[in-house]
Amino acid sequence: MSLTNATPLEVARAARLGSRQLAVLPVQARNDALTAIHDALAAGKDDILAANHRDLTAATKAAEGGQLSQSLVKRLDLGKKGKFEDMLQGILDVRGLEDPNGKVQQKLLLDDGLILERKSCPIGVLLIIFEARPEVIANIASLAIKSGNAAILKGGKESTESFKTISSLISNALAKTQVPQDCLQLVQTHDVIGELLKLDQYIDLVIPRGGNKLVVTIKNSTSIPVLGHADGLCSIYVRHDSPVDVAVKVIVDSKTSYPAACNAVETLLVDADALETTLPKVAEALLAEGVSLRCDGQSKTALTSKLDQHNAAMIQDATEEDFRTEFLDLTLAVKTIPATSNAGEALDLAIAHINEHSSHHTDAILTQSESMARRFQAGVDSSSVYWNASTRFADGQRYGFGTEVGISTNKIHSRGPVGLDGLMIYKWLIDGTGQVTKDYGSGGTRQFKHQQIPVGHEVAEGMARNAEELELLKNFRAQGPNGHS
Amino acid sequence: MSLTNATPLEVARAARLGSRQLAVLPVQARNDALTAIHDALAAGKDDILAANHRDLTAATKAAEGGQLSQSLVKRLDLGKKGKFEDMLQGILDVRGLEDPNGKVQQKLLLDDGLILERKSCPIGVLLIIFEARPEVIANIASLAIKSGNAAILKGGKESTESFKTISSLISNALAKTQVPQDCLQLVQTHDVIGELLKLDQYIDLVIPRGGNKLVVTIKNSTSIPVLGHADGLCSIYVRHDSPVDVAVKVIVDSKTSYPAACNAVETLLVDADALETTLPKVAEALLAEGVSLRCDGQSKTALTSKLDQHNAAMIQDATEEDFRTEFLDLTLAVKTIPATSNAGEALDLAIAHINEHSSHHTDAILTQSESMARRFQAGVDSSSVYWNASTRFADGQRYGFGTEVGISTNKIHSRGPVGLDGLMIYKWLIDGTGQVTKDYGSGGTRQFKHQQIPVGHEVAEGMARNAEELELLKNFRAQGPNGHS
Repeated sequence: MSLTNATPLEVARAARLGSRQLAVLPVQARNDALTAIHDALAAGKDDILAANHRDLTAATKAAEGGQLSQSLVKRLDLGKKGKFEDMLQGILDVRGLEDPNGKVQQKLLLDDGLILERKSCPIGVLLIIFEARPEVIANIASLAIKSGNAAILKGGKESTESFKTISSLISNALAKTQVPQDCLQLVQTHDVIGELLKLDQYIDLVIPRGGNKLVVTIKNSTSIPVLGHADGLCSIYVRHDSPVDVAVKVIVDSKTSYPAACNAVETLLVDADALETTLPKVAEALLAEGVSLRCDGQSKTALTSKLDQHNAAMIQDATEEDFRTEFLDLTLAVKTIPATSNAGEALDLAIAHINEHSSHHTDAILTQSESMARRFQAGVDSSSVYWNASTRFADGQRYGFGTEVGISTNKIHSRGPVGLDGLMIYKWLIDGTGQVTKDYGSGGTRQFKHQQIPVGHEVAEGMARNAEELELLKNFRAQGPNGHS
Repeated sequence: MSLTNATPLEVARAARLGSRQLAVLPVQARNDALTAIHDALAAGKDDILAANHRDLTAATKAAEGGQLSQSLVKRLDLGKKGKFEDMLQGILDVRGLEDPNGKVQQKLLLDDGLILERKSCPIGVLLIIFEARPEVIANIASLAIKSGNAAILKGGKESTESFKTISSLISNALAKTQVPQDCLQLVQTHDVIGELLKLDQYIDLVIPRGGNKLVVTIKNSTSIPVLGHADGLCSIYVRHDSPVDVAVKVIVDSKTSYPAACNAVETLLVDADALETTLPKVAEALLAEGVSLRCDGQSKTALTSKLDQHNAAMIQDATEEDFRTEFLDLTLAVKTIPATSNAGEALDLAIAHINEHSSHHTDAILTQSESMARRFQAGVDSSSVYWNASTRFADGQRYGFGTEVGISTNKIHSRGPVGLDGLMIYKWLIDGTGQVTKDYGSGGTRQFKHQQIPVGHEVAEGMARNAEELELLKNFRAQGPNGHS
């Protein structure tokens, strides 16, 4: 880790060079580096918390002056119960993950003694731009080293003191490992993001960790691929045949268990047939949790006739804009899906509404019908599409990834919650014995065999081969430089 | 297929809407559309060739006036022996490929009755920008329909007449199939590329098919992901222990079998120990094929002393720029890798040269040593890295994909030759029975199981389940809307 005032170009070039060394380090060396980082941060706890306290003091002052939000101040605090220990445990969790590097994904016999392999490898150099939370530095450092990627980190200025302390501890720790220090660079110079975003010859992937504004700004100012999501406008479509208790439970969890999360529900679509049966129970439960409901005409009419006076008075009118809004708060927009002559038509209206309004993050259907659920899952163009489950399951930990790089609404590479695999790409390797393409063309003497060779997801050091292949290769290698045995 | 003069916004919106219908069509409907296109083009052969003749006449005239290159005129000609039939066969070949859509890639039991699946699906809307070759329209139309993606096509103005005829034939053919016509749009309006490249809310992936200039211009003017490669600067590193006959054969094939191809070799790195043994034989063979050699000082000295007078006189001096040049011609730059105290150091110098100078496309090592080859394959940061084989194997047909979308030097999504898989992404599906996240948090009553369920790459219509799962789901579905059986 270098805490650097170097120019963006120097930073990016050094990271690129370091990345090539890191990419070929065995997993043991990468894991040893994670152990060293863990131990250094554990030993430096008092220094880190003291530095974090300085950041907090400044931020609290700024918040009192109205320049910073209270929620940002909260996110800055590393001293909160369990947060520091969670950060340390996170490093060990990443260390414990299976090595994503060097996995043989496909293997094909092109011809005798000519084998094609697709093998996983690191992407190269990541640029991580994040706001506030100082524990991200340890998290990203772990993910980068484990996956064999170099990383350039640029944090928010609110956490400068914490970053300085954490990064010099990590830097000293790395110096005693095989991981080149240039593989992790913390940029503290101001106003360098614009320059870094231009360096597509050195930087392969940008990962913004922050709010909508940060992500949108970055996406619009670089031709480097950006992994992430700007919005999380999630919807639930509750059909008339859904059990009421399931609807109540799933919708309340999706809205209230963490309203500020990107996977919280923002829009509820309700079958017209369910307006007087399911919806009132759902509304009562949501109102009891303090949720504001913004309803279209039909659902408002139904609710005001069914709810008691107090609750009925709390129902607000929805505007068209409400169905395009990520509230990130205890507010839910409610829209009626009109009754149609057949069940599929109503479903298609709900799908069309979601594809037009949602942010392609996570959407759910509540129904007893498997055929309707399958049509919904195929038709909704979102990264996660659920049947009878809370939208809040969209999360790397819950998906069993062990750790989460972020959530992506991209249409290429990685979609939905992204684990360590999202930091990997592959390369194509051919092992030949002197073959040339001319022999396989028209008038050539050879034909491609294109036989799939089954692979486990083993790390292939020197590739498993059958006896025939081994013999062929042995003979080939026994030749001298003059071409004869 | 609409041959359209609509605005870019209208085109992109229509393609997006069409894409959602196409995405859920069964493979039989997509294959039927390919049959219809094939038959329509076969029946319309005379009309197409007449239109192509009009393009050719205009282009030949322009070429005589110096406004167009002769090679572009050649690429325009659909009447060349076998080209039309190849185009038709290409459609049937794509039809015959396995359906890439709806493959279950991962399956995980999150908890009882809570199953997570990762399933392949189309990306959405592709924008294909191409130069000259009119057969690309049939090729791209086939790939898009087979993979379930909508496509907007913008061709070069040289082939306008061919495109008009081909696209109206395809349009009429599609009208009788289940594939919405809006899924394939040929834009003939001028100067719309800039507008289309801004429409990232509708267009998911840009695929340029053309020269370096086209690709670079597009990459620099859009935040939509671009799949492709600008350059193909490929290298071969020949080590002293490589059999001479292998070196001659592989290098001659890599350079001369199609010098204008992106996978042709442009730089030869030679061990100092091989300058007087292997290199002269390689040089003789290349010179005999008309290749110009641009050599660094050491390799030139060695060659001029070893070659006969005539050949020696043909050796030119290399400039530093030659090692950064994609000649696309019968020219090869030659660089010496100095002798070092151990074999690995020389290897690392070659790897460092390639990582710094090559375009990360395809690079090869010629050696008898497996350990050196493995280090080279791990260390070189290119999409294809070969041991003892011609760089010209980097090709979708040769890799057994059946068809090729293009060759990518991107570091995310698809790398190297790209088959139909490169047009696919995935979505995450959860099938639940009313689960909520609150039950799995601290203080919750449930624990995630995260059990991998083995999957074949079967198309899962209604997912295979075990008996226990089926029972659980049956019971759940038997409940009425009031939550009781």
